[in-house]
Amino acid sequence: MTRPQVLTTRAALQEALAPARRSGAKVALVPTMGALHAGHASLLREARARAGAGPVVVSVFVNPLQFAPGEDLDRYPRTLEADLEVCAAEGADLVFAPSVAEVYPGGPDPDPVTGMTTVVPGPLAERLEGRTRPTHFRGVLTVVAKLLGLVRPDVAVFGEKDYQQLVLVRRMVLDLCLGVDVVGAPTVREPDGLALSSRNRFLDAEQREAATALPRTLHAAVGEAPYGLRAALDAARAELRASPGVDLDYLEIAGPDLEPLPEDPAAGTPCRVLIAARVGSTRLIDNLPAVLGTPSERSG
Amino acid sequence: MTRPQVLTTRAALQEALAPARRSGAKVALVPTMGALHAGHASLLREARARAGAGPVVVSVFVNPLQFAPGEDLDRYPRTLEADLEVCAAEGADLVFAPSVAEVYPGGPDPDPVTGMTTVVPGPLAERLEGRTRPTHFRGVLTVVAKLLGLVRPDVAVFGEKDYQQLVLVRRMVLDLCLGVDVVGAPTVREPDGLALSSRNRFLDAEQREAATALPRTLHAAVGEAPYGLRAALDAARAELRASPGVDLDYLEIAGPDLEPLPEDPAAGTPCRVLIAARVGSTRLIDNLPAVLGTPSERSG
Repeated sequence: MTRPQVLTTRAALQEALAPARRSGAKVALVPTMGALHAGHASLLREARARAGAGPVVVSVFVNPLQFAPGEDLDRYPRTLEADLEVCAAEGADLVFAPSVAEVYPGGPDPDPVTGMTTVVPGPLAERLEGRTRPTHFRGVLTVVAKLLGLVRPDVAVFGEKDYQQLVLVRRMVLDLCLGVDVVGAPTVREPDGLALSSRNRFLDAEQREAATALPRTLHAAVGEAPYGLRAALDAARAELRASPGVDLDYLEIAGPDLEPLPEDPAAGTPCRVLIAARVGSTRLIDNLPAVLGTPSERSG
Repeated sequence: MTRPQVLTTRAALQEALAPARRSGAKVALVPTMGALHAGHASLLREARARAGAGPVVVSVFVNPLQFAPGEDLDRYPRTLEADLEVCAAEGADLVFAPSVAEVYPGGPDPDPVTGMTTVVPGPLAERLEGRTRPTHFRGVLTVVAKLLGLVRPDVAVFGEKDYQQLVLVRRMVLDLCLGVDVVGAPTVREPDGLALSSRNRFLDAEQREAATALPRTLHAAVGEAPYGLRAALDAARAELRASPGVDLDYLEIAGPDLEPLPEDPAAGTPCRVLIAARVGSTRLIDNLPAVLGTPSERSG
């Protein structure tokens, strides 16, 4: 278990990547905000498998541009030493942990005169997470574009936990011809179903218990999905009503690319069930895939 | 003089670039909208010099995303056969001339549900050209990002004629870490000073004569620049008043990165004089560099 090389500047990153560029070795990138847990570890394993003999790069950067004023930028956990242990255990070669000034030399805030270029997602970014976080995905795509530009990986691995982010990154790569293979890795869960998240550490015991309502609600929808869209949503809402301590933000069922579904989708339509809710002051999100059937199947 | 290889699909482009990628040869890109003239030829020569033994790629694509409704997208000249002659004469190796559908598989128009990711410039894009063309540079940067993504050149050459575009492309490359060397090449002019432009062909004889007011106005400003900002602007405005048939859009003096200048810039301040005007129904732009002195120097 070799400790990965830690790089804090763009120049050092380029120097560390030079041998791979010369040899044409595959480079895999896992962009993270640190506070790595077993979910990230699974992304690192996926990257390790995809890179073959080439380097796995993990970026650890809490990106201010994707936090709105009043969001949890300041309290977002920073745990670099522990993160390096996770990276070492999963065979990551390079950890890019730059300062904000290194990533945003002119500052991350769009200045009225000298303001920076940004990557702006299509209108999907205004739905779901975008309803409460209208500038979030602009910040995400801009920093992901920067990281892809700096690392120029062959493969970039993202978690399905942030499903809307995954869809929007895929779309950006397609729309801007960024030429990287975007791989989504399944969500890792606690034994009781709660999706791993760096924000789970903010939950007290009671909230931690209440938070299991998110995966229960998703499973209720998935379980009723064979009986159609309405049955799935009804089951999910019933589960939520029976779950105290959870302040729902949204519960939606959309297509695999988060396109809106018709009112009566055909049997066999693949979909994604998504939920966001506050438990105490902590905002949690989760999602699961499902396949929709039709109401008539219940009597069958 | 070898005729360049013409590629109309992304796949063919990648195949044609594969040998250069394998060998690590330098790749130079000249993005154009076709209708090539001696100004473009000078960009191709610059690219040829920079690429060394590597391939020079010329993209020929009239980008709908940078034209607003009512602008001259439909009448913009398309002259591919003549363009290939220019490319051949200047030693370009590959001409990428894709269809709109090849560049924008989902269509160039942001759809309310499936709309595409775009690259949005900072607030500089709202000034100068942006005042009459508010969505223009969003379209320019998005297609340039796509072309840089597809070609992945080491060097990209742009004309100084479209100075604001050059500044915004440089800024995009910096902000999104696109890792390409952006080279600006000086404007090529007719013997009477008119900057070469694909749009000059729309001018009738009288308009062609009137259009020389643009470079005359710029030279008036440059000539008086040693006596300060105000003197330069006054001289330019006097020249314009004496020039019939020119409908001014803007006349501005800004810093080399188009940053606004202080009211009394220090002696020795480098600047750019920029003009845009309509001559008949044709909109023309031009610019020149200058160095500002101070009013006291006139008496010296």
